Amino acid sequence: MDLHGDNLIGGEPLTAQGERWHAVEAATGRDLPSEFSAATPEMVDRACALADEAFDTYRETSPEERAAFLEAVAQGILDVGDALIERCMAESGLPRPRLEGERGRTVGQLRLFAAVLREGSFHEARIDPALPDRKPLPRPDLRLRNVAVGPVAVFGASNFPLAFSVAGGDTASALAAGCPVVAKAHPAHPGTSELVGRAIAGAVKARGLPAGVFSLLFDPGIEVGKRLVADPRIAAVGFTGSQRGGTALMKLAAERPVPIPVYAEMSSINPVILMPAALEARGAEIGKAFVGALTLGSGQFCTNPGLVLAVEGPGLDAFLAGAGEALKGVAAQTMLTPGIHKAYCTGVAALEGNPAVTKVASGQAGGDNQGQPVLFVTAAGAFLEDHRLAEEVFGAASLVVKCRNAGEIHAVLARLEGQLTAALHMEPGDYEAARALLPLLERRVGRILVNGFGTGVEVGHAMVHGGPYPATSDGRTTSVGSLAIHRFLRPVCYQDLPDALLPAALKQANPLGIPRRIDGKIGG
Amino acid sequence: MDLHGDNLIGGEPLTAQGERWHAVEAATGRDLPSEFSAATPEMVDRACALADEAFDTYRETSPEERAAFLEAVAQGILDVGDALIERCMAESGLPRPRLEGERGRTVGQLRLFAAVLREGSFHEARIDPALPDRKPLPRPDLRLRNVAVGPVAVFGASNFPLAFSVAGGDTASALAAGCPVVAKAHPAHPGTSELVGRAIAGAVKARGLPAGVFSLLFDPGIEVGKRLVADPRIAAVGFTGSQRGGTALMKLAAERPVPIPVYAEMSSINPVILMPAALEARGAEIGKAFVGALTLGSGQFCTNPGLVLAVEGPGLDAFLAGAGEALKGVAAQTMLTPGIHKAYCTGVAALEGNPAVTKVASGQAGGDNQGQPVLFVTAAGAFLEDHRLAEEVFGAASLVVKCRNAGEIHAVLARLEGQLTAALHMEPGDYEAARALLPLLERRVGRILVNGFGTGVEVGHAMVHGGPYPATSDGRTTSVGSLAIHRFLRPVCYQDLPDALLPAALKQANPLGIPRRIDGKIGG
Repeated sequence: MDLHGDNLIGGEPLTAQGERWHAVEAATGRDLPSEFSAATPEMVDRACALADEAFDTYRETSPEERAAFLEAVAQGILDVGDALIERCMAESGLPRPRLEGERGRTVGQLRLFAAVLREGSFHEARIDPALPDRKPLPRPDLRLRNVAVGPVAVFGASNFPLAFSVAGGDTASALAAGCPVVAKAHPAHPGTSELVGRAIAGAVKARGLPAGVFSLLFDPGIEVGKRLVADPRIAAVGFTGSQRGGTALMKLAAERPVPIPVYAEMSSINPVILMPAALEARGAEIGKAFVGALTLGSGQFCTNPGLVLAVEGPGLDAFLAGAGEALKGVAAQTMLTPGIHKAYCTGVAALEGNPAVTKVASGQAGGDNQGQPVLFVTAAGAFLEDHRLAEEVFGAASLVVKCRNAGEIHAVLARLEGQLTAALHMEPGDYEAARALLPLLERRVGRILVNGFGTGVEVGHAMVHGGPYPATSDGRTTSVGSLAIHRFLRPVCYQDLPDALLPAALKQANPLGIPRRIDGKIGG
Repeated sequence: MDLHGDNLIGGEPLTAQGERWHAVEAATGRDLPSEFSAATPEMVDRACALADEAFDTYRETSPEERAAFLEAVAQGILDVGDALIERCMAESGLPRPRLEGERGRTVGQLRLFAAVLREGSFHEARIDPALPDRKPLPRPDLRLRNVAVGPVAVFGASNFPLAFSVAGGDTASALAAGCPVVAKAHPAHPGTSELVGRAIAGAVKARGLPAGVFSLLFDPGIEVGKRLVADPRIAAVGFTGSQRGGTALMKLAAERPVPIPVYAEMSSINPVILMPAALEARGAEIGKAFVGALTLGSGQFCTNPGLVLAVEGPGLDAFLAGAGEALKGVAAQTMLTPGIHKAYCTGVAALEGNPAVTKVASGQAGGDNQGQPVLFVTAAGAFLEDHRLAEEVFGAASLVVKCRNAGEIHAVLARLEGQLTAALHMEPGDYEAARALLPLLERRVGRILVNGFGTGVEVGHAMVHGGPYPATSDGRTTSVGSLAIHRFLRPVCYQDLPDALLPAALKQANPLGIPRRIDGKIGG
């Protein structure tokens, strides 16, 4: 499929005058075919204006219409075929099986939200019927439902060119909620973004929706994104990326004349806590599994295990030996962009140069733009004294913190900032000690997992991919799973509105057949 | 009951050294008995430390324990007896029936949240069971529940000395969620605050809860509030008051090293739209009812109808005549504080001095600190040209905007900022025209009501007392009704956690007997 490199404004490809730029092949740093044109201020304005125009129509499409639309987007992405995978491999350096899996995940997310729309709880429909005879005052008829917040700006992530990008979780949940989306493509994968964007725009057209439901903007820099977040018609922002980028958007959004929410998924080092009985039973085995999780996708996951905590002893020694042995055989892998590779090397060099840190082992050295995985160890005392050791090194590097006792594990955890995940490796003999850690973990993280690693993020109803700041900008939410739709909804109450004027979700006859809360009780 | 005037830190009365201050009698401006001591920085620190210490214990009390605690708080407030009403009358200038009603509302809110706790949906319990045989990868067991966000700072409001103050809606919903509360008393009613605060502290003690679950701080200025919001142990803020105050807190909260949510309910002029058929059928009658809503409590409601929109003609003339006639008979009423009275007079003077504005009628003149209600009229063209006409005048002043046609009504509504409520007065003949307004109203307001006024805010499950900025800081929430508890909760996911370690809400046997979502479907 040919790429035209144009911004896609309400379905129309628009070429900007001025400088054009190329995508870069991750493995080689060479320019890839097709030039892209950065959106002009007028294009940003036009995309926001169209989104705003489309909003009232789109948000009041029936849940079934939006479900069918999301399914059409999913099918449209599949219909791009292998061209999507190939372009994405070239742009991201990620291997084919990973990207085929990620495409499945992306399609699965869209279909999940279609199911959420059909189920209907997202309406949060509530009815407190009138009590005309209540004393001293009658009670009016009160009905509540959620409505869409307005057009949403979505920023594509570098590390999930499909599942957290143009048609990723933020877009899927915003479109499901009834919000038009103006997406900003990540400059690391513009061709992938264009192919996916065209699939969305095609579904918008095929389903007869207003063209402004979706636009896609390109920019190798940050001006388009800043303009987008500042636009008064944008009502919320979805972002996955660095803490610097996310906090910059939070600041912009807070300083608007009308502040808006930013849902930024930012940084996390995802502590892994190895409990004594588990270490004793299977230290080496855990070490081997850990290396698998650490080096998957060159460690370029928000949920990558960047920190390991354990009490020193033979069990931890076995873990380190097992992990070290496994790591030596791991090949270096191409990283997403030269910039990410460079930042990784800088982070690793800082750990190597830290006198309190020792290298346990590293994987095989690689070529240009390839990340060599590495495992370090330090002592809890040193970790507690040097806050730089708690900073994320995005990539396949991790730091084991040797603790003298359970108290030091607790102290290290208490010192950590908010995290996406924490993993506990344990056996029944560890349960009581684990129980004592849970309150602290609940305060620090969005997901607590046992005998596994956070790198697999299920897309379901019970998932939380979120966590206290700075793991995300807003620890009250998740960016993965069905609960994510609530980021883009707000409640409206209707008091004594005649049935003829009530939205379908609240009409007396319940024509949508959705779950509703009557006088506080879930009813029909 | 004697007032001691001390800060109440984790149940202990603490007297600050240094200057003490008096509450002021609203009607006379004279000092009331008892001096109050402003909290020192050390007291703020101590209250936050105790709240943080209490948090893990308190948030994991059973819902039944918290329900019983809220009921004990309600009973404790009733047990203060008439001393509470009398002190509150003196401090606020509000009449006895209003305050007795407000006490009932306060107690009712606490009991509503007790019912919410027992019903159990607030847990948002979700279970996606393990699928060990799923291909290509097994699915782990995933369980989600809401946990409390952490200690909450609550700012008492001047205009609801009971229902939106020390034991008001913010406190009730935060305590229900499992969050300790550090309340900052409004300086306009410190005695009322002390009496209520002692009732809460008494219930904390009687129910055997950690003392840090509740503290009460006094300050005639803003330093204590600023310090409180900046404290790293505070996780969220509830506020009802001016836009200036609310946005200052938003700014403070956004600039913290760890930003936190501020739920500020701020300003609103609550447009009332008089539709043609309703005006024709009962213009004068609506005018009379309008004056009742406008002047209730000297207009000191966030939901006071400060703006009336209608197309000019005999119906609107009848409304104006009916309203004007009714208004002339309304006595001036004591306002909450001399500062509020002064701001009201300034706002009214600005309208009087505006050449585009004409006075329709005013109520009876009053004495010191009494607000004389007044109704003005202007033309839509003038309103659209002068943004000052859309500013809230807190008190019993309202502005009628005469429109030449429905298009002008639309244009005025489109120009408005976010509002708490909009009221439509209509007859069946107006339905089609009303239908055309609904999308715009849904974007601008939190509650749309028909043939009434927003001043009555039901405390129930379907209420939204919220709205887009600047009506509130966060239009995704409500500060009244059971949905308010969600402001103080965040989701946590547990993956493969053994049943023995799972919280009660998620244990396989469902010991709390709460509604849970299994694989996305509401089940048991």
